[in-house]
Amino acid sequence: MRALRFDEEGLRVAEVAAPSRAGEALVRVTLAGVCNTDLEIARGYAGFKGTLGHEFVGVVESAPGAPELVGRRVVGEINAGCGACELCLAGDARHCPARTVLGIVGRDGAFAEFLQLPAANLLPVPDEVPDVRAVFTEPLAAACGITERVSVTRDARVAVIGDGKLGLLCAQALKVLTGARVTLVGRHPSKLDIARRRGVETITTGELPSSHARAFDVTVEASGSPGGFETALKLLRPRGTLVLKSTFHGTTELNAAPVVVDEISIVGSRCGRFAPALELLSRDAVETDALVHEEFPLSEGARAFERAAAPGVLKVLIRP
Amino acid sequence: MRALRFDEEGLRVAEVAAPSRAGEALVRVTLAGVCNTDLEIARGYAGFKGTLGHEFVGVVESAPGAPELVGRRVVGEINAGCGACELCLAGDARHCPARTVLGIVGRDGAFAEFLQLPAANLLPVPDEVPDVRAVFTEPLAAACGITERVSVTRDARVAVIGDGKLGLLCAQALKVLTGARVTLVGRHPSKLDIARRRGVETITTGELPSSHARAFDVTVEASGSPGGFETALKLLRPRGTLVLKSTFHGTTELNAAPVVVDEISIVGSRCGRFAPALELLSRDAVETDALVHEEFPLSEGARAFERAAAPGVLKVLIRP
Repeated sequence: MRALRFDEEGLRVAEVAAPSRAGEALVRVTLAGVCNTDLEIARGYAGFKGTLGHEFVGVVESAPGAPELVGRRVVGEINAGCGACELCLAGDARHCPARTVLGIVGRDGAFAEFLQLPAANLLPVPDEVPDVRAVFTEPLAAACGITERVSVTRDARVAVIGDGKLGLLCAQALKVLTGARVTLVGRHPSKLDIARRRGVETITTGELPSSHARAFDVTVEASGSPGGFETALKLLRPRGTLVLKSTFHGTTELNAAPVVVDEISIVGSRCGRFAPALELLSRDAVETDALVHEEFPLSEGARAFERAAAPGVLKVLIRP
Repeated sequence: MRALRFDEEGLRVAEVAAPSRAGEALVRVTLAGVCNTDLEIARGYAGFKGTLGHEFVGVVESAPGAPELVGRRVVGEINAGCGACELCLAGDARHCPARTVLGIVGRDGAFAEFLQLPAANLLPVPDEVPDVRAVFTEPLAAACGITERVSVTRDARVAVIGDGKLGLLCAQALKVLTGARVTLVGRHPSKLDIARRRGVETITTGELPSSHARAFDVTVEASGSPGGFETALKLLRPRGTLVLKSTFHGTTELNAAPVVVDEISIVGSRCGRFAPALELLSRDAVETDALVHEEFPLSEGARAFERAAAPGVLKVLIRP
């Protein structure tokens, strides 16, 4: 089968054997999305080599032990645990120390004709959610996952920094899940409009009034830039919580003094559960269509990555 | 009166007028302690000018509106709020945006014959706590304050990084307040011994076994060094909490990726309430005598600062 690979020879589409782990489900990928994590892997930052891609929707070809899934349209949670450690036995493989992660750690990913995951990772997609929306389940789950890490009450003031695809999903998810007053801070009026149409307040970075300083209970850094981290700190009230959502590579300067003096909490957030995200998609509670920038066939996967890395581009999709 | 001042002319003992804010209590200082924050202010890092010192015990000379305090031996909470904002009205001035802080922000401090604080900030010292222990109330309260910011359960594994005076108090306070298994990590066997005698496990930094990596639920950075921050991160389990207790000035490098991937929380902690600390001191639950390195008269305040800044020195006291 064809797959978009990254290794010593760089990023390219290659002919490879279909995956054949014993005991796992086989999924024919129908649509996949490019994430900033994919771009960072392709820049060599993450040490992963193999088939990229972890946002997908597909159809189950085979599923040992779960015949009811065969022929179903599914999305799949990307962390596959050892199944034996305390965390896995508690039903959450996301921090299993021996986990593999689809297209990220030790497991070939979704930019391919077929992928494999344990059947337990797969969730059927409701009929009312077309592929072009279902493919957002993984990043939307990551956005929803913020509420697993931080309690956001209805009377909280929340600011999300960054109007890229991650920030747009975080702002909408927090708004609909918590009912809180959510403000999205970004640089692009056209992108901010997407969130505004769904009840999120918006403001451009250059127009932040001084009254916003130290005014927010929770801020979410979703810009992927050290500047976004600084803004998130600046907007936070004493004893507030800054959620670190994006993994900008390299390091940022952390000045410990204000974190201690203002008793700030900085909370990392990675993957979320898929069920709440699917529920939001099935009742059209979050806008994703406007986030789709362009679709490429798998054969043009490298070009899809170039496009996804261009300034101002939101979601790029790859169709095997 | 005499006071140890820091301003454009540097650090020196000077003759100044006794403080005379209307409506505040006047305290004759009997003993005061030098904190690392004082040393940082004297290096010009914090922008404060005036009389230094915020750890003290003294005797109330006058107290408008609180005559029952006159003649009592007291310690004093160091944050004085505006009294009118939402936080102050809720009884907690520690984050009042208009607060002054004894010897740190906008208010002359304790290295003087007299100081002033609102009467509401003063707490009588139980008879069984001598001055040489009562003077530890402020830093011990800061140590106890960790439990206001982070839930530490009895079955938690806790590591405190740094065997200086702050780390020794944090390790002991967490042990006695929570019953958790607490490990103090430091460089000086003689200092580690102080905590070990109070039920804290200890280990030298160079001897950290690999089994300690990612093994702790809560780590506390109390070393004041970027290296301590790195150690605190390394020891923390996924979804664990790193408490930032010391305000090392300048910045440290923060690599966001592991904070996000391992979903770490970094929680700043500053001042604590005095009552729990006084309670611990009154029942001799925490060792402080062994932390006292040397005492200087106020007239030799500058020399006291030199001594306190020397490597390996724990608490230096100043007697007016």
